[in-house]
Amino acid sequence: MRSFRSIQWLDDGVLRLLDQRKLPHETVYNDYTSAGEVAQAIREMVIRGAPAIGAAAAYGLALTAVHTAVTNTTVLKRELAETAVLLRQTRPTAVNLFWAIERMTNRLADPNLDAIPAIQAAILAEAHAIAAEDVQINKQIGLNAMSLIPDIATIIHHCNTGSLATVDYGTALGIIRMAHEQGKKVLALLDETRPRLQGARLSAWELKQQGVPFMVIADGASGHYMRTKGVDLCVVGADRVAANGDTANKIGTYNLAVVARENGVPFYVAAPTTTIDLATAAGDEIEIEERPAQEMTTVGNWQITPDDVPVGNPAFDITPARYISAIITEKGVVYPPFEKNLLQLFVTVQPPTDF
Amino acid sequence: MRSFRSIQWLDDGVLRLLDQRKLPHETVYNDYTSAGEVAQAIREMVIRGAPAIGAAAAYGLALTAVHTAVTNTTVLKRELAETAVLLRQTRPTAVNLFWAIERMTNRLADPNLDAIPAIQAAILAEAHAIAAEDVQINKQIGLNAMSLIPDIATIIHHCNTGSLATVDYGTALGIIRMAHEQGKKVLALLDETRPRLQGARLSAWELKQQGVPFMVIADGASGHYMRTKGVDLCVVGADRVAANGDTANKIGTYNLAVVARENGVPFYVAAPTTTIDLATAAGDEIEIEERPAQEMTTVGNWQITPDDVPVGNPAFDITPARYISAIITEKGVVYPPFEKNLLQLFVTVQPPTDF
Repeated sequence: MRSFRSIQWLDDGVLRLLDQRKLPHETVYNDYTSAGEVAQAIREMVIRGAPAIGAAAAYGLALTAVHTAVTNTTVLKRELAETAVLLRQTRPTAVNLFWAIERMTNRLADPNLDAIPAIQAAILAEAHAIAAEDVQINKQIGLNAMSLIPDIATIIHHCNTGSLATVDYGTALGIIRMAHEQGKKVLALLDETRPRLQGARLSAWELKQQGVPFMVIADGASGHYMRTKGVDLCVVGADRVAANGDTANKIGTYNLAVVARENGVPFYVAAPTTTIDLATAAGDEIEIEERPAQEMTTVGNWQITPDDVPVGNPAFDITPARYISAIITEKGVVYPPFEKNLLQLFVTVQPPTDF
Repeated sequence: MRSFRSIQWLDDGVLRLLDQRKLPHETVYNDYTSAGEVAQAIREMVIRGAPAIGAAAAYGLALTAVHTAVTNTTVLKRELAETAVLLRQTRPTAVNLFWAIERMTNRLADPNLDAIPAIQAAILAEAHAIAAEDVQINKQIGLNAMSLIPDIATIIHHCNTGSLATVDYGTALGIIRMAHEQGKKVLALLDETRPRLQGARLSAWELKQQGVPFMVIADGASGHYMRTKGVDLCVVGADRVAANGDTANKIGTYNLAVVARENGVPFYVAAPTTTIDLATAAGDEIEIEERPAQEMTTVGNWQITPDDVPVGNPAFDITPARYISAIITEKGVVYPPFEKNLLQLFVTVQPPTDF
């Protein structure tokens, strides 16, 4: 059913990324051998989607380790620390990037890593672990969501949160895929998701290959479908979930959530717990990336606007927690009050002392 | 300041329309000498915008009258009746089309029109009157709106409602233009308005020429600006206002209105009284035109989606009256309850009998 993979590590120390800017017209894989190249690929959105960015950054660090010319472990660790700084600067909003880099850095702190080959092996193994866990996490998110999806369901989805946005399978789009695979009669209404059209280009491309029924709609049409056609739920991904449940996600998510609540349509966020950032108390603390004007003024090689028009191009928005019906994670479905219930996900359960 | 006009009648019996599909890149005027050509131009959106469509249809009837080969008034009147049928079938949602055709047909019912030249002169004069009145009406809408616009105002606008959507000046965009001309410090946030991008292509083109400060934003970004940046009001046009105030307008209007109310931002509809259709009790009686998939799948010469993807492309949506703060007409600003107050606009004031 699938013949693509967004991120692949080749045994000769090459990171291969599917160039998502060229989809759906061309399936082009780019090979990278340095973290600097990977940083640029993240910035230019060769790869995008919060979980995929996290895994790509982890492999970026692995590239530095594997291809290092140095022979001194202290110098290599400094190289890796510099690589971490570089990768952290690529995109500000999605927290998985910072989470993955921190996990890799923590691994590096292991005092047993006292030789170059040991560091190289550990760093690469940690990147592989992040990637492998992401796939399992996504499938568990799907399983956890199934009780929320009616047997016949029209579902609005925003942006792309599928295999392309993750290492494999997907979060919100993975839920739609799993519902279809389980025999539910789903119809996905895919917001095209301006300006970069991840819905029209990428989600449509994925669902078409998977045989999931869908229709592409304009972002502004979501309310019309909810008000007049019957929509059962909305499901979106997340770039960062604050401790209180406020969610940063692709621009347009907030409008969709408000209109969903107005129409009594459940609005779900699907995200791995790595997207939840307890260090961010509320959504308005999250930096919203402003992206280049050219994303708004042109589509492909076609210029839309007159020359030199002023443009606003925030890549994300914040959906306050009160619009979110539940947050679907690999550890379970979390309902309001999010402040209390998200925290529960991170509490390590201690065995009773009198046991 | 302006060097274009959406509709022009040339003295040799030619209707010249600015081809809005080619803006902002090319300024191409198409010349028409038959109503059949005009009907196709309306259908293909060479000309669009409810008031402009009404005027174009009136001139379409004038073309039939002026270029007729018949010598019998009864036959000419039948030709004109057939033309009316043809023009009525072009687009279903905007009521100005039907209003203009009805006004022309009523004029034709005058029993004094008992010769071909008299019919030709009367029909052309009526079309000219519709066009001239439209310009005056738009300016009066602007004047009536001025007390609603703060001296410093950030205003979200959807689609194109300017000179291009009317015979001249514009309705909602005319208000923004007039506020600027009166020295108010306005910043227009122009929704790009997918799928046909009338905001990014046409409204940006108009405001740039007029020197009005603006920014183009994605439709999905409107809520982000309202929630975080401070927006003073939204103003949109209308394709049909039902007797209860429910408003059919370009797809995306409903989402904008819901998000505006959620953020406490006043939401105004600007429309001539010819857009108000008392024969339509409520919005859900209005037929919503579904337009070709190609409008969604390609932008200019650039295909966005994979091949052959299913698409939903409703051209309009209905904004229920409860989301509308006021309807700004040439006869005054109408506030809720709209059912009562819109009707008042059409009541002919009788002088008191005891006066």
